[in-house]
Amino acid sequence: MRMVDLIEKKRDGGELTTEEINFIIEGYTKGDIPDYQVSALAMAIFFKDMTQRERADLTMAIVNSGDTIDLSEIEGVKVDKHSTGGVGDTTTLVLAPLVAALDIPVAKMSGRGLGHTGGTIDKLESIEGFHVEIEREEFVNLVNKHKIAVIGQTGNLTPADKKLYALRDVTGTVDSISLIASSIMSKKIAAGSDAIVLDVKTGAGAFMKTVDDAKELAHAMVSIGNNVGRKTMAVISDMSQPLGYAIGNSLEVKEAIDTLKGEGPKDLEELCLALGRQMVFLANKADSLEEAEEKLKEVIKNGKALEKFKEFIQNQGGNPDVVDHPEKLPQAKYLIEVPAKEDGVVAEIVADEIGTAAMWLGAGRATKESEIDLAVGLMLNKKIGDSVKKGESLMTIHANRENVDDVMNKIYENIHISGHAEAPILVHGTITE
Amino acid sequence: MRMVDLIEKKRDGGELTTEEINFIIEGYTKGDIPDYQVSALAMAIFFKDMTQRERADLTMAIVNSGDTIDLSEIEGVKVDKHSTGGVGDTTTLVLAPLVAALDIPVAKMSGRGLGHTGGTIDKLESIEGFHVEIEREEFVNLVNKHKIAVIGQTGNLTPADKKLYALRDVTGTVDSISLIASSIMSKKIAAGSDAIVLDVKTGAGAFMKTVDDAKELAHAMVSIGNNVGRKTMAVISDMSQPLGYAIGNSLEVKEAIDTLKGEGPKDLEELCLALGRQMVFLANKADSLEEAEEKLKEVIKNGKALEKFKEFIQNQGGNPDVVDHPEKLPQAKYLIEVPAKEDGVVAEIVADEIGTAAMWLGAGRATKESEIDLAVGLMLNKKIGDSVKKGESLMTIHANRENVDDVMNKIYENIHISGHAEAPILVHGTITE
Repeated sequence: MRMVDLIEKKRDGGELTTEEINFIIEGYTKGDIPDYQVSALAMAIFFKDMTQRERADLTMAIVNSGDTIDLSEIEGVKVDKHSTGGVGDTTTLVLAPLVAALDIPVAKMSGRGLGHTGGTIDKLESIEGFHVEIEREEFVNLVNKHKIAVIGQTGNLTPADKKLYALRDVTGTVDSISLIASSIMSKKIAAGSDAIVLDVKTGAGAFMKTVDDAKELAHAMVSIGNNVGRKTMAVISDMSQPLGYAIGNSLEVKEAIDTLKGEGPKDLEELCLALGRQMVFLANKADSLEEAEEKLKEVIKNGKALEKFKEFIQNQGGNPDVVDHPEKLPQAKYLIEVPAKEDGVVAEIVADEIGTAAMWLGAGRATKESEIDLAVGLMLNKKIGDSVKKGESLMTIHANRENVDDVMNKIYENIHISGHAEAPILVHGTITE
Repeated sequence: MRMVDLIEKKRDGGELTTEEINFIIEGYTKGDIPDYQVSALAMAIFFKDMTQRERADLTMAIVNSGDTIDLSEIEGVKVDKHSTGGVGDTTTLVLAPLVAALDIPVAKMSGRGLGHTGGTIDKLESIEGFHVEIEREEFVNLVNKHKIAVIGQTGNLTPADKKLYALRDVTGTVDSISLIASSIMSKKIAAGSDAIVLDVKTGAGAFMKTVDDAKELAHAMVSIGNNVGRKTMAVISDMSQPLGYAIGNSLEVKEAIDTLKGEGPKDLEELCLALGRQMVFLANKADSLEEAEEKLKEVIKNGKALEKFKEFIQNQGGNPDVVDHPEKLPQAKYLIEVPAKEDGVVAEIVADEIGTAAMWLGAGRATKESEIDLAVGLMLNKKIGDSVKKGESLMTIHANRENVDDVMNKIYENIHISGHAEAPILVHGTITE
């Protein structure tokens, strides 16, 4: 088999066989097939796309390029949730204890990564004493006993994806539904869960700018999951503005606690229920999505979800007092308001730019070497559709430095006030096949 | 400027500016832009193509990536002829003395290269004493005085093209009219001629399999030439069978001599006139293509073309006696006939496969290290449309080895005899703009 023939086959609209796709991914991972052939193939895929079968094969070839996590010692249906990436996305912190409270095993492996704020582990580490350095055996025991635990990611998962992504990033081949879907799904499948719930973001702050594009990606991923034996569903959700009010690590932990109490931002609660009901349904804990949603509302109402969060914190060395006393979370030195410059209605809050402003404060990592400041971040006081009077605070900056002119300017550039605007629709649909 | 942005621009159907194209080719030549970005761009160009302006800019960027030949010391309009590659193509050997006989300067730089037979220099070296190791000054003087000289190629011409071609060859990006046309034209332009005549081959033995594809390529190249100030014309000619009768170095020299005497194969003569009249016209030695053709016929008829060939051989150390005594050219030890296995009409002679058979005899180089045997090759005795009786010779193998079963089998596999067939049209058209 020669790589150049496979490039030409795809270029001319042909369908690559399972064997051919395995040859490409194995060869690329080993270094037998060079970058310059793979980038040409990726561009051919951009133009000629892949069939559902090819996408599923590509996904599994990437999964098989490295280690996979074996969660078979954990009882029950393991359901993983994945978001395509948003700003102020606190759903994981809410959903983990929420579904665990319904006896669904949450065996979370998480990383730190780059971004506007830290990863799930960073956020949880804003709770005093909380740590993820636990042995694999303890992790399994914790999940079996308490239905919830978080551990740092280990093993060399999907090395082909890392190599491919780095290449696509510099060769104009990122924007291919086939390649995006295979990349995301390969990581989720390698992580070992039985079922997958996807939160596909759309809007200015998301990778998929339109609802149609987001739906196409969601269909592609759901189809891959179902093709390779992992039950998969997706929610299409709005990211034209940050989700909830908090952007920052300890700020988001506080917001998650509020939401578990039933006192969180309405949009965050709505999305958690939309995602959570799919998780509950796929874990066979309800016969319909409606029933699943009722169960979730119940464990919020009766306090079981909040109790589960405390239990979870305690199990991993953290101080559960923060749940009742969130002021014990790291606090920023300076709280600086961002007053509206005019009367009107908030019409636009450019999510990714606002996220960048939070990163400038230290809430996230710009490079792997960056230190995160768990206390800092932004709290939105107004969201799209809210009326505002001149001088009223649009946002509160939580900073550990006195001069925040750069952040302030960035915020003003990315919040627009006009005569009239309506709150955007949050959930644009659910994709179940 | 970032390469990834330029890849995306082309991928999305944009037109690259002159500055952007220069950035790409300069960066690639220096090694600042890696192969994997250029192969992705090449694939994007395959799908989105280039405008005439982009093609001309790409051509000139490639020309400027290395040395260029300065022929300004040579008087008159220097016209170069280029063939896209065929089998048994003796036109250069005929055309050089033919147009020089009309006082058109032929300042030929030639290489050796790979192929079914040797390059022009190899062929000429089958004449005893003939050599191309002459000083540049002598070369210029010879052309100014005698209107004809050949010298080996020196200098680092179009290094970007060499790099690009090697990359395209392994990334499925060869078949792009824009890239093919720019590659060919950049080499011709760097070689310094004022005007260019192109012989674009079509048919089974050629790179362009259909007349339409060949015409598209010809238009692209003629447009590039005229856009960058080099008058350019093209002939579309048939390569569904070998041109003339001879395939081999000394065999083709003999055939060229016959043609200059007016006694050569009709198809070779026809193509030489079709190409030659464009050369004469572009050199301003005739007011119309018809007048140009008349002049060419005249110098064949009155012997001036043949005299010019003798003069040319003598000037470069060769023995001009071969012109009157072609038996002084290297002769193969064994002449082996290939008898027809049935009565009928020759319907197919697969040109490139027959060329490969000649290479197996030693007529051409398979690798740079291969030694050429100037004496060996094939002489066609029948061409498409010719009647043949069982046992009559289809071809004569000129070999320096006794066992030629491999060559014989290859020939039988690639000559087909049927009930009826007509000679193909040789010249499919001329492209002048």
